[in-house]
Amino acid sequence: MSEEYDKLPLEPFFKTIDELAPKFIERLQKAIAIPSVSSDESLRPKVVEMAHFLVDELTTLGFTDIQLKELGTQPPPVQDANLQLPPIVLARFGSDAKKKTVLVYGHYDVQPALKEDGWSTEPFQMSYDKAKGILYGRGSTDDKGPVMGWLNVIEAHKKLGWELPVNLVVCFEGMEESGSLGLDELVAKEAKQYFKGVDQVTISDNYWLGTTKPVLTYGLRGCNYYQIIVKGPGADLHSGIFGGIIAEPMTDLVKVMSTLVDGSGKILIPGVDEMVAPLTEKEDALYDNIDFSVAELNAASGSSTAIYQNKKDILKHRWRYPSLSLHGIEGAFSGAGAKTVIPAKVVGKFSIRTVPDIDSAKLDQLVFKHINEEFAKLKSPNEFKVELIHDGNYWVSDPFNASFQAAAKATQDVWNIVPDFTREGGSIPITLTFEQELGVDVLLLPMGRGDDGAHSINEKLDVGNYINGCKTLGGFLHYYGKA
Amino acid sequence: MSEEYDKLPLEPFFKTIDELAPKFIERLQKAIAIPSVSSDESLRPKVVEMAHFLVDELTTLGFTDIQLKELGTQPPPVQDANLQLPPIVLARFGSDAKKKTVLVYGHYDVQPALKEDGWSTEPFQMSYDKAKGILYGRGSTDDKGPVMGWLNVIEAHKKLGWELPVNLVVCFEGMEESGSLGLDELVAKEAKQYFKGVDQVTISDNYWLGTTKPVLTYGLRGCNYYQIIVKGPGADLHSGIFGGIIAEPMTDLVKVMSTLVDGSGKILIPGVDEMVAPLTEKEDALYDNIDFSVAELNAASGSSTAIYQNKKDILKHRWRYPSLSLHGIEGAFSGAGAKTVIPAKVVGKFSIRTVPDIDSAKLDQLVFKHINEEFAKLKSPNEFKVELIHDGNYWVSDPFNASFQAAAKATQDVWNIVPDFTREGGSIPITLTFEQELGVDVLLLPMGRGDDGAHSINEKLDVGNYINGCKTLGGFLHYYGKA
Repeated sequence: MSEEYDKLPLEPFFKTIDELAPKFIERLQKAIAIPSVSSDESLRPKVVEMAHFLVDELTTLGFTDIQLKELGTQPPPVQDANLQLPPIVLARFGSDAKKKTVLVYGHYDVQPALKEDGWSTEPFQMSYDKAKGILYGRGSTDDKGPVMGWLNVIEAHKKLGWELPVNLVVCFEGMEESGSLGLDELVAKEAKQYFKGVDQVTISDNYWLGTTKPVLTYGLRGCNYYQIIVKGPGADLHSGIFGGIIAEPMTDLVKVMSTLVDGSGKILIPGVDEMVAPLTEKEDALYDNIDFSVAELNAASGSSTAIYQNKKDILKHRWRYPSLSLHGIEGAFSGAGAKTVIPAKVVGKFSIRTVPDIDSAKLDQLVFKHINEEFAKLKSPNEFKVELIHDGNYWVSDPFNASFQAAAKATQDVWNIVPDFTREGGSIPITLTFEQELGVDVLLLPMGRGDDGAHSINEKLDVGNYINGCKTLGGFLHYYGKA
Repeated sequence: MSEEYDKLPLEPFFKTIDELAPKFIERLQKAIAIPSVSSDESLRPKVVEMAHFLVDELTTLGFTDIQLKELGTQPPPVQDANLQLPPIVLARFGSDAKKKTVLVYGHYDVQPALKEDGWSTEPFQMSYDKAKGILYGRGSTDDKGPVMGWLNVIEAHKKLGWELPVNLVVCFEGMEESGSLGLDELVAKEAKQYFKGVDQVTISDNYWLGTTKPVLTYGLRGCNYYQIIVKGPGADLHSGIFGGIIAEPMTDLVKVMSTLVDGSGKILIPGVDEMVAPLTEKEDALYDNIDFSVAELNAASGSSTAIYQNKKDILKHRWRYPSLSLHGIEGAFSGAGAKTVIPAKVVGKFSIRTVPDIDSAKLDQLVFKHINEEFAKLKSPNEFKVELIHDGNYWVSDPFNASFQAAAKATQDVWNIVPDFTREGGSIPITLTFEQELGVDVLLLPMGRGDDGAHSINEKLDVGNYINGCKTLGGFLHYYGKA
């Protein structure tokens, strides 16, 4: 089959999406109007209202087996000890044993937003700038646009009278912006129940790398977060009286922290680099065509402080090499001005972004060994401890598997360009949870652009990304269903 | 004249002090009852009330030329933009051209104190533990006890019908615990006016080194406080997205801070040690008899983190060698838990305690040169600056001059022991101000003990220190007047 032949059958679907665009924009407007801020306890009823809005929409569209999975009381710290977690919304569309089953994940909660933060428009009233073709509003791109996108795909099929090419299971959570409390447990519990028979998971909750070229995301870095605790005197001391005669914890901590990474980003802990998977020619070639430049990095960082000046180095060090960041020190003087204190106990914080094939437990061992050796060199009388605060593994999929190939085809149909295969430097922990608990491939299929301002003021979604995004989501289901 | 002959004439004075002890304790009790906390704006009327209490006492005792020197509006930051600084109380007793004139400085404001902080008694109700012979209350030792001490000396002379052996000028301020705002200007202004003819300044606002042996303090370290500013990206960044591809300011700052001092307290900035005055045999011998031990240091620091294990090394490094302390970092993550931030701008704070013969301006140059060189080695694209926040010079007097010899004689009469000649590691900036503006010798003549808890809960003054302190202050005036 030629590309031409493949593409033709989807044209009526694309046309229907275009016809329904005004209705889809209205659907997104209704969703944005509900301020479902999960981190604000006083707005918890609005998060629950948003779950019910979804139930109504799913019911109208003909979804079945709709369930609101209650997750119980939110654990501390909370102001209201009886605060209930928002429910996870589960529903299915179709259950044909001959079809593949795709689980789509999204979240219906949003980040906080106040007009006073600097928004140009009311954050919870969608503002449609028709001249620019942009929809502004909290949640437009993160993640109400993509969630509505899946509903829109069903509506377009129904209007066309087309059968959905796969069985669809939806899993929409309401705590993603607040640590996805309860989600891991639910996925584990439903893996062999509600999610039984799922062949593939698609998550539409990230963004293009830039602003013009669609991407498919096949990798995420992990993160191991550590703290170094140095404890000396029984209480903070005056540097006039004690300076020069006691071993100061800050001196020790700064010495140890200075041995972890150099200014060019090289991790100085022996053995870490050796665990990194070698770069293959095939992978190296993937970076050649990716639409990115050092100018874009500088614009994003608001500075000219890039370590690498060429695109491929930047992308490799963002995606496929580990990095180590020193985040700060707890317990030392951190205010403005001058305070002549010798801090009694200081806690240095740093984290390592992990990549294939770094073994998380072995990394911990190397980190502990190095730091203990460096501290031992100081011959300090202070108490010392290094510990892991939390970890989350990296995730890498095969960009040549059925999911990615189907998504690539759909993207090419819609955008008339081969998408970039990208990774991300940060982590989306739920990706790994689904992959491990369900034992299936996960696809990250972004709808919005890199400049959407997901957690910032004036969050937006371009109309083009929203409408073409719906076409891409639907197209993916078709190609994947046939694969 | 033999020591015996010298001592006899003061015995009536000492006896009178003992007889008046109950009245002197009552005077201190009245002073403590006024919560003259200079840092609490709402208590500013109480600070002023305390000034008027002093005026009443001075008037009753026959002081003349009593003046309340108003210092104007307190500069920001303040809540009340019209907040007036408390006045400085000036008064004189005697103006005989044939006598020497001694200026005594003290402060009538106190540190904050709340019962809830952990006090065993009400901080502003003096509690007299007769079994232990201890007076508890905020300000008992810092500095209301010594201030009342000078008044008590006059009262004892009046009761005896003795003439005061010197002319006395008092200068009591009400902002010492809050930066001595306005004092430097007043001293400069009055140097050739109210303070004209002053031969000597005595400050009773510090403490014995330990708890059993009286001391006279002839030296203080200075303090130059610096900050290192490293600025990279335009705003804080996410370490997942930017870790490994931009030069992180924290990495640079920690590297630079790690080159300043080692774990044994040695300053690593070239040229600093070379400026320190060599230790003479005479000075070295002064440390031999001083009553101090590493056990006392460990008790004070609440740890066993002493760098030196013998008395002389500890004292020399507290008093006569410089030290460098790293105080903290502004702008980095300083909270509990984990935050994956790349701080955009970080400001490292450190200070150097200075000693003879460190030239403050030359020290700044050495610090700037070293830090700029260390930063240059990093070849970092980040913006960088190192600057002085504030400085205050060291002070060292001659422990063999007339003031110290007179104070030593008085101390020996009262305590029957030769006092230790000590320095302090911290600074009392007013010492230098008086010395420089008036061009006369300054004596630090402490009344309380090292364990009085000046700025802590359960601040106290032993009755023995209060009453014998009065004798010592008066005795000093006699010996100095005759010298």
